[in-house]
This record gives sequence, structure tokens and C-alpha cells, in this order.
Amino acid sequence: MSLQEAIVRIGDGRLTCEALVRDCLDRINERESQVQAWALLDPELAIRTAQQLDRTPRGGLLHGIPIGVKDVIETFDLPTAYGSPIYRDHRPIADAGCVAMARAAGAVILGKTVTAEFASSHPGNTTNPHNPAHTPGGSSSGSAAAVADFMVPLALGTQTGGSVIRPASFCGIIGFKPTFGLITRAGVKQLSDFLDTVGMFGRTVEDIAIFTAALCGRSEFVRIDEAAPPRVGLFCMDDWPPREAPTVEAVENARQLLLSRHCAMNECALPASFTALGEAHHEIEYFELARGLQHEFRCHANELTPGLSARIREGLRISGKSYEQALRLVHECRAAADHWFTDVDMLLAPSAPGEAPAGLATTGKATFNRMWTLLGLPAITLPMHRGPQGLPVGVQLIGRRHKDRRLLAHAEWMFRSATLSP
Amino acid sequence: MSLQEAIVRIGDGRLTCEALVRDCLDRINERESQVQAWALLDPELAIRTAQQLDRTPRGGLLHGIPIGVKDVIETFDLPTAYGSPIYRDHRPIADAGCVAMARAAGAVILGKTVTAEFASSHPGNTTNPHNPAHTPGGSSSGSAAAVADFMVPLALGTQTGGSVIRPASFCGIIGFKPTFGLITRAGVKQLSDFLDTVGMFGRTVEDIAIFTAALCGRSEFVRIDEAAPPRVGLFCMDDWPPREAPTVEAVENARQLLLSRHCAMNECALPASFTALGEAHHEIEYFELARGLQHEFRCHANELTPGLSARIREGLRISGKSYEQALRLVHECRAAADHWFTDVDMLLAPSAPGEAPAGLATTGKATFNRMWTLLGLPAITLPMHRGPQGLPVGVQLIGRRHKDRRLLAHAEWMFRSATLSP
Repeated sequence: MSLQEAIVRIGDGRLTCEALVRDCLDRINERESQVQAWALLDPELAIRTAQQLDRTPRGGLLHGIPIGVKDVIETFDLPTAYGSPIYRDHRPIADAGCVAMARAAGAVILGKTVTAEFASSHPGNTTNPHNPAHTPGGSSSGSAAAVADFMVPLALGTQTGGSVIRPASFCGIIGFKPTFGLITRAGVKQLSDFLDTVGMFGRTVEDIAIFTAALCGRSEFVRIDEAAPPRVGLFCMDDWPPREAPTVEAVENARQLLLSRHCAMNECALPASFTALGEAHHEIEYFELARGLQHEFRCHANELTPGLSARIREGLRISGKSYEQALRLVHECRAAADHWFTDVDMLLAPSAPGEAPAGLATTGKATFNRMWTLLGLPAITLPMHRGPQGLPVGVQLIGRRHKDRRLLAHAEWMFRSATLSP
Repeated sequence: MSLQEAIVRIGDGRLTCEALVRDCLDRINERESQVQAWALLDPELAIRTAQQLDRTPRGGLLHGIPIGVKDVIETFDLPTAYGSPIYRDHRPIADAGCVAMARAAGAVILGKTVTAEFASSHPGNTTNPHNPAHTPGGSSSGSAAAVADFMVPLALGTQTGGSVIRPASFCGIIGFKPTFGLITRAGVKQLSDFLDTVGMFGRTVEDIAIFTAALCGRSEFVRIDEAAPPRVGLFCMDDWPPREAPTVEAVENARQLLLSRHCAMNECALPASFTALGEAHHEIEYFELARGLQHEFRCHANELTPGLSARIREGLRISGKSYEQALRLVHECRAAADHWFTDVDMLLAPSAPGEAPAGLATTGKATFNRMWTLLGLPAITLPMHRGPQGLPVGVQLIGRRHKDRRLLAHAEWMFRSATLSP
């Protein structure tokens, strides 16, 4: 059942909020031992909340809709451990702004989803719902897997490198990383102030649009109708970053689809300066996380993974000059990116290098995501393809800064076109 | 005793960390009933920490230096109430990044200083150390008053509108609001993500420079020598924003001083678009605080002041379009500001409309601060003048983005010139 169907059924009384929550809990019960998407569930609290909503006149956009919340996003009634043993059983005093906005719209927080340690690299135990021997991607691993496995229609995530788009691509669902700052970050554990972006997962673009409307309190997002086919820029820069055959196919299929639907298609060659954005991302992320996580480094060094400790030490060694050079490069590239979008409505690009890699030791590479996060541009991945291992492969659409609604409209148009294709 | 003197004396063993902390506590004991700078003090904890530091080889830049921390900045061993009864006795689980950086440099957190409610408008009980019938300014009221009253050599604050520069001007000390993002905001209660900036208070520019070096982990800030006299742009735009005679005099005196020291002086007429920055600041701040403080609005409405509740309601009514228009204006004005700084090293501008207003009901106006916060430019206020009521009046210097060190160097040069003036 899609979010929209659930909203309609709850609205006309065919479905209670409690029944919907129980459906989700049943699905979790059935599948969680394999998928391991949840860091924490409180079924009784969720059922109680749903029962209360059943006694309340329908008000918000998400009345009675169960959602998953990445465990770096604070909740006042459920523990929040940020994916770290340091904060085992920690109970924040307040909801993060995005959680409070979701609750104000009537959402039921079903539980907290597994995240990599502080939304950085060290993964949790979540498996890919399509094949448990493969990673679901990360760091928003649990949110992506829970939505892909029909445990919940919507979930919140965050992206600092590729932590929304990549897991959504690997799990075969829609992931949306809005323009930097669209959704409030208050109460989200900080990894990198310059990069951290609240994003989300869903199974249809319309569901994502409704969720966005609720989270940022902007009802205009509910309607995402767009008249004309988009003018599309094809992201291309020879073989950089490296990509595998399934990703090449996914993008080529999407390109053919768009051409068959009469989209204007331009090649968008990236300026050479863009190749340095990967290094700039590294400098900015490490410089900032070393300072933001200084308390954990000082007081809980033994409970950090060696990898994260090393990153903090490296970040403390990065000079202020390198950090500021990286910021300057970003500002130059932003101006270049603004320039493209005078001629095109969106860019078409890979979401990830290929299918989800085998094993759970890493969550895959963010090489196709970091630059868009750095530039603050809205990005969405659509599940348009499957690779030879039977795993999903997404394609990514990137929009103009603050034109999130237009991007969603074009994504919806394209996704519908794909579904109707032979 | 200045910070530098204390550092030297602790370094050569003439002063113990414990004795310095006890000196500060004595001063607080003597004066706190009038000044009311502190939201929370834990003298025993501070003394214990100082004793530990006395047994530890001197390492960091701030070894044994007591500092005050604005009570919107989280500390793991002292309650943090964000200036709100909602969070009375709340004890965060971790230090904010800037507090952890200060501790890593050897600082002793003496206590938490009084803040306006959530660093917004509703003031606490702090009085101006120069005259208890006048406001100390806000929202970083306690930090400014504590440093001005010699209770502590350094204190942390935050600025979203004018919450560092204004209280420093009113209290006759130095306040520094760095370039947006220079000091990590992890663990600082969010009011406006786009605007919130960690800043600080001290009694000499050199003290501020050392504090900055420790807080952002960049040792280059310790040395702020600059060869040539600065090229100065004189902020002018007829009578906008409105200013009182003491402020006009303070700026004129500073201008004469700079001319007498052979500074090149240009008038920097602001583009007309700058008059709209005040409104843009309002839109951005209210839009964001309404979403960031949504939890408090949903769950603790009765414990918010009516003024803040009204601001949250107003923020929820601001359209996404208005908010994004405001952001666009800021980006245009940033480009204009970058342009000035090709010809000048710093701008000279008022810090506040005049002396600290009488009464404690408001903390004064941020009309000379909001635009620099919005533009993300580093700003420092120097206590260069006294008004007819005997209260201090600062002048503000504004530097180029990321040229914080150069701004501090020029401020130090200017402050020393003023001290040496007849």
C-alpha cells in the first residue's frame, strides 16, 4: 500500500491508524531477523499513539502514517544512540525539528532505524532486502531497508556524502536529498555542518512530495504537477568517476526513455575543477567532524571505532588554509552549476557506481553523490533498472538549488513514464 | 589580570590554576547579587578541575583559564537550560564541540552564563556592570557582563542577530563574531541554522585571538601581527539605520584616530538593496526558528513566553517563497560585499545605536549587527568611547569572509593605537 492509498483509506474510515501500524509491525516481525533495519522499536508506544490518532479528527498531512527515523535524529520518547555504543540507551530531551514537524502532521514514529556510527562510515548490521549477502548502502541503512522491505512507507535519513541517494539506489526505492537547508537540522547529531542534509526515503515520488510538505511546513509541495517535459542535461565526464556496466545501462536506458518522450537532451560536460570536489569534500568533512565530535574523541576514545578515531585525528591535522581553499572551490563550482541550469531543468547522472556490493563491511562508494551534497543541489534517485545480480540500480536526477518542487515534478513525470513503458 | 598575563604566570609557576579560579569565584561572590551574570555555577567542580590541571603538565593554549559558557551551549557536567524553564535542570549528555575544544586546550568551565530565552529576545535578569539600571544587551547577556565585570577573562556567546557585538558594546568589552562557521556549532541549541554563529567575549584583542585559536584548533590565530595600517571603508548610508549622538561620536573619533595613523579611508556607500536586509533577516530567522523549535511549540507551549510563541506562529506563516527570496537577496549582497573588500581591509561601522538603554525589559536593537550576521562576515567591537550617561559605546570593524585573522590583527593595531592616544 502506498502512502497515498493509506491516506485516502484512513481519511474515509476504511483503515484505522492502529491497523496500519499493526500491519507495519507484522511485516517487521516477519522480516526483521533477516533485514535488521531497526535500532529500536517500541511497538506499544506506536500502537498507543495510533489509537490516540484514531480518536482525533484527521488534521495533518500524515495523520496516522508510521515513519522510521534514522538514529542520528533525536526523539524525546525513544532512545537515540547515533549508531555508537557511547550513547547506548541515551534518551534526548527533545524531538529534532523534523521529527516534531512530522508529528505535528500526524505521523507515528514507529522506531529508530540503523545508522552507521555517527552517520559516518562504520556500518550497522542491516542487510539488503533484495539479498541479505549484500549491503543496503549507508549511512541511512535502516531507513532505506525498512522502506524497501515494506516495513514502513516513509523514513527519514541524512546525507553528508551519499547517505540517502546511495542506499536508496541499492535498495530499489526513491531517495530524496533536498536543497541544503530545506528541512530543519535542529536536533540532528552533527557530522559536518557544511554538508549534513536531512533527506528521506519513499516508494513513490508523490509520497516523497507529501512527506517533504509535512517536514518543511510548505503545503505547495503536495502538488507536483508540471506541464512540459524537462530539458535534461546528461552528466558526463568521460569515465570519471568510475562506474560499472549496470550503472552505464541504467543511465542509457533512462536517456532513451527521455528521448522517446521528447525531452531536449544536452551533454553537460563538467568543468575540470569538478574533479577536485571529491578532495574538497574530504577536507571539509574531516575538518568539521574532528571539531564537532571533539567531546567523543576526548571522553570516549575507547568506544569510537579505530576508523573514526583516525578520521578525527586526520581532521585535526587539516590546516585552516586547506579547509578554506576547499570552501572556495565549492563556491566557484556552485556558480558554474547555476550556469548549467539556465539551459536545463535537471541533470541525469548515476546514483551509485553499480549494484550494491557483496558483504556488509562497507556501504559502498559515494563518488556520484558527494559533489551534489557539496553544491547543496537537490537530488533524487529513481529505481529504474536491475543489474545482473538481480539487485536494483537507480538513476539520479539533480535539480537547481531551491527548485526542489520542480525536480520532484519532473521526477514524478519520468517515473510514471518509465512505469508505463513497454 | 588579562588572559595573557594569567597564561604567563601559570606557565612560570607564579600562579596556580586553582588560585586563578578562586580569584574569579571571589569576584563573582562579591558582585553576582547585582550583576546576575550566571545561570549556573559549580564552584567545587571548577576548583577540582583546576586542581587536576595543576597536577598536569601544561599543554594547551588555555591551561587553567576559567571561561564562561552561554547557557545555549551544551556541557556534559553542568546543566544547560537554554534560558527556558522547559529545560530547567536539563543535563546534556555531551559537550558542545566548542566547549570540548576549549577543554582540550585546558580551559576550566566555570559555569553557564545567562542567556535570553533560546538566544532569542526575552531577557534574563543580568544587569549592566557599569550601571545596574541598564541592560547589558543580549542575548549573550551573562557572558558579556561576566567578562566586563572581571568575573572571568573569556566567555563564549552566540550571535543570530546582534547577540555578541551589541552586549559587548553595551558592557565596554571586546566581542568577536567570526566568519560564519569558523567555530563548530555542534551541540549549540539551534535558533536559526542560516544565522547562528558562535562568538566570544574578552578584554583584549590578543586574548580573543588566543581563544579563537583554541576553539577552532588553528594555532595560526595566536599570532596576529600585521605590517601595514589597514585600508578602511567607512560604512555610511545617510541616517540609516538610526543612531544616537554617542554612536556618531564614537565612529567619528575612531575615524579621526585612523586618519591620524595614516590609514587610507574610503566612504563605502551601501547599495540600496542593503536596506532590505533587515527584513530578509526577519524572514529567515522566523521561518527557521519556527521549524527548529517545533518540539517546544508542540509539547511545551505553556512554558514559552508569549513573545516567542507569537514569533513561532508568525514563522510558520512565512511562505517558502518569501524565505527563498530573502536567501537570494543575501547571496546578491554577499557578492556586493566581496567587491568592497578588494579596495579595503575592513569596514568601520557603529556597534549599536547608542549607549545601553535603561531598563531590563529589552536588550536593545540589533540594527547594526543583523546585516553582517546575514552576510556571514567577521565582526569585532572595540570599546573606544563613553556616552553622556557614562556607559560604554563600541565601534565595529567588519572584515572579509574568512579573513578573521587579518581583522583581528587590524583590530589589535587600532585598539593599541587608541590606548596610546592622548
